[in-house]
Amino acid sequence: MCGHCGCERPAAPRRLELQRGLLERNDHLALHNRKHFAEHGLLTVNVMSAPGSGKTALLEQLAKLWPQKPLGVIVGDQATDHDAQRLADAGARSIQIRTGALCHLEASLVDEAFRQLDHAGMNLLVIENVGNLVCPTAFDLGETLRVALLSVTEGEDKPLKYPGLFRSAHAVVINKLDLAQAAGFDRNLALANVQAITPAARVFETSARTGEGLEELMAWLQDELPR
Amino acid sequence: MCGHCGCERPAAPRRLELQRGLLERNDHLALHNRKHFAEHGLLTVNVMSAPGSGKTALLEQLAKLWPQKPLGVIVGDQATDHDAQRLADAGARSIQIRTGALCHLEASLVDEAFRQLDHAGMNLLVIENVGNLVCPTAFDLGETLRVALLSVTEGEDKPLKYPGLFRSAHAVVINKLDLAQAAGFDRNLALANVQAITPAARVFETSARTGEGLEELMAWLQDELPR
Repeated sequence: MCGHCGCERPAAPRRLELQRGLLERNDHLALHNRKHFAEHGLLTVNVMSAPGSGKTALLEQLAKLWPQKPLGVIVGDQATDHDAQRLADAGARSIQIRTGALCHLEASLVDEAFRQLDHAGMNLLVIENVGNLVCPTAFDLGETLRVALLSVTEGEDKPLKYPGLFRSAHAVVINKLDLAQAAGFDRNLALANVQAITPAARVFETSARTGEGLEELMAWLQDELPR
Repeated sequence: MCGHCGCERPAAPRRLELQRGLLERNDHLALHNRKHFAEHGLLTVNVMSAPGSGKTALLEQLAKLWPQKPLGVIVGDQATDHDAQRLADAGARSIQIRTGALCHLEASLVDEAFRQLDHAGMNLLVIENVGNLVCPTAFDLGETLRVALLSVTEGEDKPLKYPGLFRSAHAVVINKLDLAQAAGFDRNLALANVQAITPAARVFETSARTGEGLEELMAWLQDELPR
C-alpha cells in the first residue's frame, strides 16, 4: 500500500508468460529462416552492439573487401535508412528495416526483408541488428553466427555489464582500435572481461578506419562458409 | 502461409495492448514518485544514453563538484554494481538497480531504490538509466528533467536514428569532447541533427576527462532546483 495516494502497488504484469509466447513464435520463425538461408548456401551473421560501435563502418569495409561475391546486409534501425544507403554505396546489397518503437530485430522482420533481397550469387548475409546491448539477445533470427562488437571508447566493462548478449556471441570484435590510445583503452582488462563472460568466443581486434584486423575477421568468415 | 514448413505466419501478438497496460501502471507509479521527490525538495534527472557514452564518468565529476549537498544517484545496469561503486568513491550517495533481463528502468524499480537511499540534505537526485537508446524512452520514472547523452565517438546521426529518446529530452549533452578530433567528429552536423529532432532542448558540450562544459551544465541544474 502506498502511503501517498492510497493505491496498491500494481501487481506484477504477466510479462514472463507473454515474453515466452513471443519468443516461442520467434523461435519457430527463426528455424524457418535458418532453413531458407541454408538452402540458399548462405552464411548468416547477426551483428550486435551498442549504438555507435561502428557496425556499419566495419561492414562497409567488408562489402568492399569480400572476395568475388556481393555482400548482403539486412540492417535494423529505429528510424532512417542511412545505414542501408551507406552499405549500398560501399557495394553491398542492403535492405533497411525500420523497427519503429521496437528495440531489436525479430525473425519475422528478417524474413520479410530477406524476401526483398536479391541473394543470387551471394554467400554471406550479415544482419546488422538495432544498436542495443540488451534486447537483441533473446531473439534468434535464424543466423548461423552471432558477433558482438565492442568499441574501445565504450569502456572495458561492457561484457560484464551486458553479459547475456556477449555470452551468446560466437565472436567478439573489439573495434575502433585506432582510437584506443586516445581513449586510454586497457586492452588486457577488456580481453580478460571478454574471457570471463564468454571464454569460447573468437576475439578479433579491428579498425574500420585503418583496416587493421579485417584480414583475420574475413579469414574466419571464409572458414565458416557452407561447403 | 510459409512455403517451407506449411505453417501460418504467427498472428501479431497482443503487444500493443499489453504495452499500454504496462505503461499505464508505470505512469501511475511515476506520478507517485514525482510527488515523493517534490515533497523532499529534490530535482530529479533521468540520464539516458547508449552504453559507454560516459554517463558514469560525467556523474563522478558532478558528484565531486556539486556544491554543499551530496549528490544522489540511482544507477540501473543489467548486471554488476560497478557504477554505483564508482559513484560512491566519487562522493555520491548511490544505489545500484540490477535490471537483469530488463532493458530500461521503470518507476517501480526507482521507487524501491529511493526507499533505500539516504536523501537527507540532498537537493539533486540523478537516475542513471540502463545504457539503451530505445527502451527507456516510454518509461516515465517520475523525474523532473530528462537528459540524453551522445558521445562524439558514436557518430553524428544518433539523434536521427533514435528520435524518440532524443525528442523526449530537456537537454542533450554531447560528451567526450576530448576525443572529438581523434574521432573526426563533425560538430556542426551533430548540432544540426539535435536541432532537427529536438529544437527546444538545451545543448551542452562536455568532457568528463578535461572538465570542459561542466560549469555550464551545473549552472543549468542549479537554475532548475526547486525553490
